Amino acid sequence: MDAVTVASRPIGSVDRLVRMAAQDMAGVDRLIMLRMDSPVPVIPALAEHLIAAGGKRLRPLLTVAAARLCHAAAAAPDASLKLAAAVEFIHTATLLHDDVVDGSTLRRGKIAAHLIWGGSSSVLVGDFLFARAFELMVETGSLRALNILAHASSVIAEGEVLQLTRSHDLSLDQATYLQIIQAKTAELFAAAAEAGAVVVGAGEARVQALRDYGLNLGLAFQLADDVLDYGGTASDLGKNAGDDFREGKATLPLLLAMARTSSVEAGFWQRTVGDLKQTDADFIRARDLVVGSGALESCLDLAMDYAAKAKAALSGFDNNDWRQSLEALADFAVSRLA
Amino acid sequence: MDAVTVASRPIGSVDRLVRMAAQDMAGVDRLIMLRMDSPVPVIPALAEHLIAAGGKRLRPLLTVAAARLCHAAAAAPDASLKLAAAVEFIHTATLLHDDVVDGSTLRRGKIAAHLIWGGSSSVLVGDFLFARAFELMVETGSLRALNILAHASSVIAEGEVLQLTRSHDLSLDQATYLQIIQAKTAELFAAAAEAGAVVVGAGEARVQALRDYGLNLGLAFQLADDVLDYGGTASDLGKNAGDDFREGKATLPLLLAMARTSSVEAGFWQRTVGDLKQTDADFIRARDLVVGSGALESCLDLAMDYAAKAKAALSGFDNNDWRQSLEALADFAVSRLA
Repeated sequence: MDAVTVASRPIGSVDRLVRMAAQDMAGVDRLIMLRMDSPVPVIPALAEHLIAAGGKRLRPLLTVAAARLCHAAAAAPDASLKLAAAVEFIHTATLLHDDVVDGSTLRRGKIAAHLIWGGSSSVLVGDFLFARAFELMVETGSLRALNILAHASSVIAEGEVLQLTRSHDLSLDQATYLQIIQAKTAELFAAAAEAGAVVVGAGEARVQALRDYGLNLGLAFQLADDVLDYGGTASDLGKNAGDDFREGKATLPLLLAMARTSSVEAGFWQRTVGDLKQTDADFIRARDLVVGSGALESCLDLAMDYAAKAKAALSGFDNNDWRQSLEALADFAVSRLA
Repeated sequence: MDAVTVASRPIGSVDRLVRMAAQDMAGVDRLIMLRMDSPVPVIPALAEHLIAAGGKRLRPLLTVAAARLCHAAAAAPDASLKLAAAVEFIHTATLLHDDVVDGSTLRRGKIAAHLIWGGSSSVLVGDFLFARAFELMVETGSLRALNILAHASSVIAEGEVLQLTRSHDLSLDQATYLQIIQAKTAELFAAAAEAGAVVVGAGEARVQALRDYGLNLGLAFQLADDVLDYGGTASDLGKNAGDDFREGKATLPLLLAMARTSSVEAGFWQRTVGDLKQTDADFIRARDLVVGSGALESCLDLAMDYAAKAKAALSGFDNNDWRQSLEALADFAVSRLA
């Protein structure tokens, strides 16, 4: 993203956490493959298309890491792996439904499932994975962990509906934008980490600290994603840059750029975002306006604040490898923009 | 349905059960209205459109009645009402998603929600209600009841996908048809009754008996619904007669009629169901062929077998008002066709 250079940006990495959690995550992957199976062939085929594309599996990684940070026994508690698999199923179900809702064409670098199997299959396989997530959670025996993820699921759906009904709203304010990304993204990060602590019997202070970590990490990640949509490439994103703009989604980079350029560009924004009447060239112009207005730097500053809060939430834990790798993940959320 | 007359059909009724459960169901309704609320206005609006249209609320009624049959204390156990509300939310969520998947235009006698608020809102509000169902279930404190309904939810989704992938399949056999309706309809009837018994601490034999009752009742109801699609009116159905045919859905009346008339009508069935190339007049001809082939009587005979099995499953219970009203419901499943 050559248009944005911030000298003091920390260099984070997800690699250390991935390496430390490799054995646990292999167990999570086995559970995922086992539990997405069905005698109805389209179900594992569609689920595998998305799940095998994989990405970093950040959310189940948070569950596993939170459990380890609170309870670093040599043998991974079986319940934390099941919970992590359930988190990935919930996330996958929401992706399947979101891509139908948004009409997205690319996901995790692959053609969106609904374009191959149809929107109906995506909706129903999403439902299947969501139900399977709850079956897995029942097996953990933790009603509290189950409640955390059930509540997160209703908050996510609420956030998606809010986004849907406000997505073309040029007057969306920053507070409503933050409310939307907290609900649709950060809530699952928070719940994934919180439930990981709960399932190994961590005390209240640690449970709350991991929830705070996840929430702030999720906000940082979503802000960074929204920045990448104007400054990244398809390979950074695993989806097409410019998708948010083409869908007229009122993300913070766009909202700030509109506010800062409205005196001269009101007509352009009304046509392209308000009325969603776009030509192919409009995204380039929009991106130039977003970059030129300094909106990306403002979003990055905010993302870095959240990343710092995420790290601060871990201050009560021993300064061990797990804590350090979670801190590096928070830095990664913003440094992947460098 | 003047084309079908079966002299010995029992006259059942849902009225007695509705009357007996009226107070409990008023509590269930209060919970439903309370828990479908959200600060995002489209959520309660859309949910209320479907839930207020109501119908008979058969599935939560089963939960309440099962709890009462096993544990007839004067004060309704709070947990059974919460479970019943959760059952209605799960059912409503599947209806919202099904109507999007099927492109249905009418539901419970009203315009389908997706035609008013859009398919995206229907998908997301369905997700919201599904998540809220699990939050309600957590409050019952019964992991076992939760597991029963989580499992039912994944079976339902599996059945819907199976139906979707096989719906135009002219070679569908009766066993696969029964597998589909067991999954997409009877499983939730079974789970609703079973979970109602579980949540009041009933013994294993009673839990299993109520599951058997619900399963057979659900099969009888779905068979009757599939018959009504060829023999009923929109007011019987709360949806348009002929919808199944127009969607090319391979239900048993159609499958039997095709098998019995294929020697002379193969071309008609291939065009209208196989290739889904229909004119407005085709449904009348299809209905005449279905009626003329005796397919509706065959389906009704099968439905009556299931209704009888449902009643037989209750034989171990005291012959009290609750048992009798559940028996009358089983008769109602088939007598509403008279």
